[in-house]
Parts: sequence; C-alpha cells; structure tokens
Amino acid sequence: MAVYTEVSDEELNAFVAQYDLGGLLSCKGIAEGVENSNFLLVTERGPYILTLYEKRTRREDLPFFLGLMEHLSEHGVDCPLPVHGTDGVALRELCGRPAVIVTFLKGMWPRRITATHCAQLGGALARLHLAGAGFAMRRENALSLAGWLDLNTKCQERADEVQPGLAATLAREVEWLRANWPVRLPSGVIHADLFPDNVFFQGETLTGLIDFYFACNDFLAYDVAICLNAWCFEPDGAFNATKARLMLAHYQKVRPLSHEELAALPLLARGSALRFLLTRLYDWLNHPPGAFVQPKNPLEYLRKLRFHQGVRGVGEYGIDLGPDVDGGEGI
Amino acid sequence: MAVYTEVSDEELNAFVAQYDLGGLLSCKGIAEGVENSNFLLVTERGPYILTLYEKRTRREDLPFFLGLMEHLSEHGVDCPLPVHGTDGVALRELCGRPAVIVTFLKGMWPRRITATHCAQLGGALARLHLAGAGFAMRRENALSLAGWLDLNTKCQERADEVQPGLAATLAREVEWLRANWPVRLPSGVIHADLFPDNVFFQGETLTGLIDFYFACNDFLAYDVAICLNAWCFEPDGAFNATKARLMLAHYQKVRPLSHEELAALPLLARGSALRFLLTRLYDWLNHPPGAFVQPKNPLEYLRKLRFHQGVRGVGEYGIDLGPDVDGGEGI
Repeated sequence: MAVYTEVSDEELNAFVAQYDLGGLLSCKGIAEGVENSNFLLVTERGPYILTLYEKRTRREDLPFFLGLMEHLSEHGVDCPLPVHGTDGVALRELCGRPAVIVTFLKGMWPRRITATHCAQLGGALARLHLAGAGFAMRRENALSLAGWLDLNTKCQERADEVQPGLAATLAREVEWLRANWPVRLPSGVIHADLFPDNVFFQGETLTGLIDFYFACNDFLAYDVAICLNAWCFEPDGAFNATKARLMLAHYQKVRPLSHEELAALPLLARGSALRFLLTRLYDWLNHPPGAFVQPKNPLEYLRKLRFHQGVRGVGEYGIDLGPDVDGGEGI
Repeated sequence: MAVYTEVSDEELNAFVAQYDLGGLLSCKGIAEGVENSNFLLVTERGPYILTLYEKRTRREDLPFFLGLMEHLSEHGVDCPLPVHGTDGVALRELCGRPAVIVTFLKGMWPRRITATHCAQLGGALARLHLAGAGFAMRRENALSLAGWLDLNTKCQERADEVQPGLAATLAREVEWLRANWPVRLPSGVIHADLFPDNVFFQGETLTGLIDFYFACNDFLAYDVAICLNAWCFEPDGAFNATKARLMLAHYQKVRPLSHEELAALPLLARGSALRFLLTRLYDWLNHPPGAFVQPKNPLEYLRKLRFHQGVRGVGEYGIDLGPDVDGGEGI
C-alpha cells in the first residue's frame, strides 16, 4: 500500500486545470500499488487515475510505456489510456515527479483465482501480443538473463540468510539458464508483470489490463510463462494443471504457439520463476526496516522454480502435444 | 495510510447487492485514514465510500456515530450520509467487521492552511454545534479528564524516553487540569477531532466535514479549543493569531461564545493539547515496530501545550474582550 508523494490541493488544482476534465471534485490516494503513487481523481467528467512515477520507474522509459498504452488501446486492448492536456501533452511533472492522468478502467482484480479467470487471461494475453505487433518503439528487458546474472551476484553473499543452500541453488540455476536460454523464439512486446492485481474483472468477465511499467520486448512465450507462474499455482503451492490448460488453450485460440515455443515453456517458466525469486530476494534483503511496503516472500518463487525444474515436458502444463504436432493442434 | 482488511471481490459484490446502487464498477482502498479501512466504491450510481470499522472503533458506539451523521445531514450540515440497503439497514458486517457505505463528499482536505480556511472552519463548527442540539443520543467523551488521568498513568514510566522531563510535565499538567477543569459550560455534541484532514474544501470553499468517530457530548467550547490547536499553529510551531481571530470571529457570527466560554478558552486549549499529547505519546510508545501507520509526533502537542500555559487571556487568541463584554461583542 503506497502513496509516496503528498500532493497539495493547490498543486493538484493547477495540474488538473491543464486538462479538459472539468472541475476537480476529489482526490484520494490509492492504497494499492508498490512502485508508484496512484490517486483516484473524481472530476466533473468522472473518475480518472493520476500516477506519479517514483524512483524505480525510469523517466526515459515513460514514452515507451505511455506510447504502448495508446497503441494497445487503439488496437482493441482494454487498458488505461493516457489523457492529453489541452496543450496536447500527456506526460508532465507534479511535485518533482513525472506524472500522467490515465482513464479509469472499471473492474477489480480477483483475490481468489478461478479457472474461468485463467481462461480469460489466456485470451487477453494473446490479444495483447497480437496488438503489440505494430508498435514502433523498443525497450530491452532489463530483467532477463543479464539482469539475473547481476541480481544473483548481488544476492549471493546473503541469500542463505533467507534459506540455507539458496545461494548455491541460485548460482546453479543462473548457470544452467545461461547455457540453455533460447536465442530465437517469436518476439514482440510483452507485459512482463501480468499478475492478478494487474488484471481487472467484473464478475468473471475480464475488463482490462493495467500497469505496463515492466513492458518490454522479449519472447512472447516468456510472457505466457510469467502468467503460468502468477496464475496457475494455488495458495498452498500446488500447481493447478486445469488452470494452466485453460489458460494455454484460450491463448492458442487467439495466437497458436509454435512447436518451439511449446517445447521451451518449461525452460521459460524456470527463467520466469528465477526472475521473481531474484527480485523478491533482493528487495527482501535490502528493504529498509521501517518501509511502508512489506516485501513479498521470495520463497514462494523458489517452490515454483523447483516445480518447473521437475517438469519433463509441456504435457505437464495440461497440453497434449501429440507425436509430431505444432502448438495449434496441441489443445 | 491504511487498509487493514482485504475484501474479496465476491464478498464485496454480495455486500453491494444489498443496496440500490446499481452494479459495482470498481473498488480502491484509500491510503488515507488511520483508524479504519476505507474504500472508494464506484457504482453505476456514482462514487461512494465504504468503511470497515477496525478494532479501535467500538461497535456499540456506531449507532451514535451513524445516527449523528444522519441527524446533522438533516439539519443542513454537509457530511457523509449512511446509505441504507434495500432492507432499510445501514450498519452491516463485512469480513467480520462492522461496515457501512456512506455518500461521497466532494472536496479535498487542505494541505496548506490559509486564514480563509480558518474563517470557514469557524462558521462550520458553530453550525455543527447548533445542528447537534436536537440529537437525542448521548456519548460520553472517553478522552476527557478521566481518560487523561488513565493515559498519563500508562505513559508515566516511559514518557522520558521521548523527552527527558516529560513525565513530570505531564503529571503536573494533569493535576492542574483536574483542579481547574470547568464543571459547567454550554454542552452538546462535539466533533472532537476536527483536524484539517477531516474538513473538505474546493478551492477555499468548505464543502463538508467527515470522520465523526470521536464525536461525543462535551463542552462546545472544548471543540473550539481543539480547532485552535489543530488549525492555528504554523508548521514551524508559531501560533497564528490572525487565523485564530478569524476562526473565532466566524464561529461567533453563528454562535456567540459566552463570557465564561471565552474566559475558559486558554484552559480548554491546554486540556485539548494535553489530550492529543497523551494519545500520540501512548501510540508512540506502544506501536508495533513494523506497523503500517507511522505514529504522529507527540512533541508537536507539547509545544502547543506550553504555548497555552503561557497565555494570560483570550485576547492572545486575537479576541478583544473589552472591559465587561460577553463574547458576542468580543469580535
């Protein structure tokens, strides 16, 4: 829960006056969100979201993120749309931070994930991947292999404080992934952080995706692997193959995965598990004692990593590959 | 900043279905607020506030608080109004906590207090006092003299951890207030916590009062004294007599203070300063190390207490009492 920056009413009124939104009726800081400060504005035109980008979001990446939301929205993806001021500008400054107003997306993120949620997510993820195809800007994934090597180095010394033997596990996994990480797979714009709190539903109908601040260019199937980890494990740590099967099947109805992509999924899922294990571990070891935001438990992702290490083939994710099929027939 | 209770989408949808509010479009936890969990609901009928009462608000007091908001609203005070369900019920349970939906009040609380804010506050406070006159229920002020004696006893042992000599200062002040606290002054329903974050403005126009969860029956002038402390000191600790004069003058335009009330103001202001000093000190000494909510600095109120200890008469609050006048002529 996080509002890092206090915005005065004078500053806010002056800020909102630059838009064609009518008078400002109210502004409440939103408790959710970890990286940035978010406020729900109610104006005479209705509700909007104001985001102030805090230090972990790099200023130079913002044109990519905002441009991507506009591109996706134009191509049929339900996501927040940056609002332009009367001067045409969307990205401004407020209280010394980059700031934007985006449109309000109805829906709530699901606290208890059902198989139906997973099915809908699969379709939405595939549509996101297709819609991203024509986006002209590029952003490297800072949290892929090179980033893991770096985080692993930073965590090695103290990883065993969290669990004895963790440092060795991490070192072996990073080394194995370095030796085996794919060089060529279908690539494009990925969300890269599509956890349940970034996907809104009304009832069991998906209403949109938010929080594109880790989006980047990478293997599309890596985004699928991130969602496998984020959506298809139960709170007790058990993998739910029904959820995975539905997610993958509905993904493939929109964008069939190639044989290479399917074959790479267990490996990509290991990479994705390691990515969140490392970033959570780093935050766990380095968060200031009195911090607002409680760091997430890294060991959840150690368990997921171990699961994927034991997977012998994509069939364990609920897909019947058959003897000689491409992904399109694998459902 | 606080949302203490996580509400699932299923529970929330079932809860909102008991009201005639249309479909639920969104629910965001509000970062502000210390005592209870607050959510901004957007329904097809517009925005509403959902409050879940956490442990510091006593369940048996809720009918008083909710009844008071209804009474005040009926008598022209702009404040949130509890929304009744289709079954007529306003106070329900959600996630094991008492819960209500109240109407949305436009405006924002002022971060930088101007003299105009203070003037408007004075008038609104007096109107609140007049409107409360016909309210049939009663609630004792748990944080008056008896409460201070109790808190002082609980804080004595460790008060000097916060500032050497503080325990002795508190003991002397409690003793002095016990000997001098008024027995008879005009009484009625007071807000008892009318800090700037509980008063909304649009620009410099007051739009309403919120958070009646300390409201009780006590001396009306004690509420004035609370506002003197909460609104009329600058961030550097200096008392701003212009703000006090405007606040008192605009209060008196609506409800003239009697000579006894005016004469008692410095004493009541000492009591009010001690009350917030003691509750903040208690929270400071007793908050768990990893708590979400950063406790407020008690020493701010020690400085205010010292100021009022040095006040020789109500004239120092910007009022010209004259040789032999009642409050009505004192402006």
